[in-house]
Amino acid sequence: MDHQRAVFADGLALDSGAVIKPLSVAYRTYGKLNALRTNAVLICHALTGDQYVAETQPLTGKGGWWDTLVGPGKPVDTNRFFVICANVLGGCMGSSGPAEEMTDAEGQPMGRPWGIDFPSITIRDMVRAQKRLVDHLGIDRLLAVVGGSMGGMQVLEWAATYPDMVVAAAPIATASYHSAQNIAFHEVGRAAIHGDPDWKGGRYWEDGRIPAKGLSVARMVAHITYLSEAALGRKFGRRLRGASALTFLEDVFEVESYLRHQGSTFVRRFDANSYLTITRAMDYFDLASEHGGEVANAFRGTRTRFLVASFSSDWLFPTEESRALVRALNAAAANVSFVEIATDKGHDAFLLDEPVFHRALGGFLKGAAERVGV
Amino acid sequence: MDHQRAVFADGLALDSGAVIKPLSVAYRTYGKLNALRTNAVLICHALTGDQYVAETQPLTGKGGWWDTLVGPGKPVDTNRFFVICANVLGGCMGSSGPAEEMTDAEGQPMGRPWGIDFPSITIRDMVRAQKRLVDHLGIDRLLAVVGGSMGGMQVLEWAATYPDMVVAAAPIATASYHSAQNIAFHEVGRAAIHGDPDWKGGRYWEDGRIPAKGLSVARMVAHITYLSEAALGRKFGRRLRGASALTFLEDVFEVESYLRHQGSTFVRRFDANSYLTITRAMDYFDLASEHGGEVANAFRGTRTRFLVASFSSDWLFPTEESRALVRALNAAAANVSFVEIATDKGHDAFLLDEPVFHRALGGFLKGAAERVGV
Repeated sequence: MDHQRAVFADGLALDSGAVIKPLSVAYRTYGKLNALRTNAVLICHALTGDQYVAETQPLTGKGGWWDTLVGPGKPVDTNRFFVICANVLGGCMGSSGPAEEMTDAEGQPMGRPWGIDFPSITIRDMVRAQKRLVDHLGIDRLLAVVGGSMGGMQVLEWAATYPDMVVAAAPIATASYHSAQNIAFHEVGRAAIHGDPDWKGGRYWEDGRIPAKGLSVARMVAHITYLSEAALGRKFGRRLRGASALTFLEDVFEVESYLRHQGSTFVRRFDANSYLTITRAMDYFDLASEHGGEVANAFRGTRTRFLVASFSSDWLFPTEESRALVRALNAAAANVSFVEIATDKGHDAFLLDEPVFHRALGGFLKGAAERVGV
Repeated sequence: MDHQRAVFADGLALDSGAVIKPLSVAYRTYGKLNALRTNAVLICHALTGDQYVAETQPLTGKGGWWDTLVGPGKPVDTNRFFVICANVLGGCMGSSGPAEEMTDAEGQPMGRPWGIDFPSITIRDMVRAQKRLVDHLGIDRLLAVVGGSMGGMQVLEWAATYPDMVVAAAPIATASYHSAQNIAFHEVGRAAIHGDPDWKGGRYWEDGRIPAKGLSVARMVAHITYLSEAALGRKFGRRLRGASALTFLEDVFEVESYLRHQGSTFVRRFDANSYLTITRAMDYFDLASEHGGEVANAFRGTRTRFLVASFSSDWLFPTEESRALVRALNAAAANVSFVEIATDKGHDAFLLDEPVFHRALGGFLKGAAERVGV
């Protein structure tokens, strides 16, 4: 598939010491960059997201993953802002990643995908790749960097690594580190992929197969963590599938066929090696350990304004972790607003139509725009 | 392996309409039955438990799973009580189940295990099998039925199905139904088993293999749900395995190797078809639907005394579900005590050394014993 992309021949040096050469960054933009180049908003996507934030996703034919939030007249108003969204490094929608063609140390193509040989990456590596894109677009300073979940981790790395380039930062439904429980859930998904006979030590591309069953299980378990017990209960409860009484068959509950559907559609659009690479990057994320053991150290002296948002029923990134982040920002004397959205929709709520969240983010961006005269 | 068991040649008719013939119930007892046969306490085990409640488990060589609670001078005092624990119907430690030899309609052995052909069972079927054992032991009335998690579901079925046989009932860390989220987690485990190449449509016994990778993944995801984020955080946090800095290797976090270990040891002692059969039985469990849509209907007119216990950080069977059970028991005018134990150890806490819980259960059993003059 052809994706719009920027290619950087000199490549990118990674935290692991490896170099990706050349570096490709696939991206999409919405709205127009103003003459002063001061109205750019960078959106960072989550684990299985992509650059198609506000338009039809070419593989699935579905609308953009943040269509509710990004567009003309919407909270991230593309009539006013120039919105950029890039596929993360390690992703599988056109940026350098395991599904792309492998290159040697001189950047020469090797006639096979990277696959399992794609180097380990970090959230900071993802952000460095985005920085190259932003430079390439001729933008010195981003009006805002916005993202939820793993996207929020990138927002934090942006603000920590390039403080002078970020006027406003909105880390949403995220944390300054990936918790032991979240690492454990990721590990279940990885074990499922590794256990699939079509995994073939990561070289599944050699015979044109994919570890569909393992990747599907990985998606199923992750999907549960994106929802809440209340959301699952309301959506499905214990409703039986096409039966009024217990039938003792497979897939007897609606929640089961829903989950299986989530798993089986996912494998058509996502690469297993990419999933492994990105889940590892999330697990490695620990802002404190990158800054002498204190999250506050990452933000001392910052002039970036922050909006931290959490969702009350999110148990993947609970409000308590957002509060800890706010305390660290306060300790760094940063300008920070915090909002906890009352919802029973779990982690997924950051992607859904949550009016209070949308008003909070819309107002935050407006305030930033007014400060810089956009 | 030889297990102590009672065999009932006439078999057991199941909720599904199938008949298991003969019915085998493997069990262990501790302490002595008194002359009046009034001091029997039945303990019901959880999903992956067994009858070795208070002695070395012969396959693992580890101590009994409720050693902290059951024994001489312990809260379930085997100097005073005659404790019975049976492997559940559908289990894999000697009771009729998928790993045992299949029999035909006349009860004749067929020279192969049941495997996938073992019929679907319910929690009530498990309890009916235990009832046969209790009758066989010459006991008309149980002083108490005690169990946690799936064991608690059995306790509720005992009190609902044989109210005159149960003086006291202690359903612990359980609920009157299995929630959509819990069904979803079970479905992930089943999908992992079904996706294993050694699953072979459930006929893995034919070539002496087991779907070890799939069963291991099922155990891993279940194990996370037994713990709490706080417990995982305290136990492992983000500690790295044998490294002081990020190494970008597999199994980099301690929590990962711990989980993998949990998975790989489990497959040595548990049968995959048994796991599928029992998780399904848990998913089917819904006391209200068996009693005209109201849990209270299951207990109207009961003289059984109840102790309902929950653990504050248990997110698999949250306190709210225990409270709902208590409200239903109140609505049925049953005699019920309720205790929520403050702990950060998650669902697993019911198996651990929790002094407040142990005192509550010990006191409850003493009270029951005094009422019947034991």
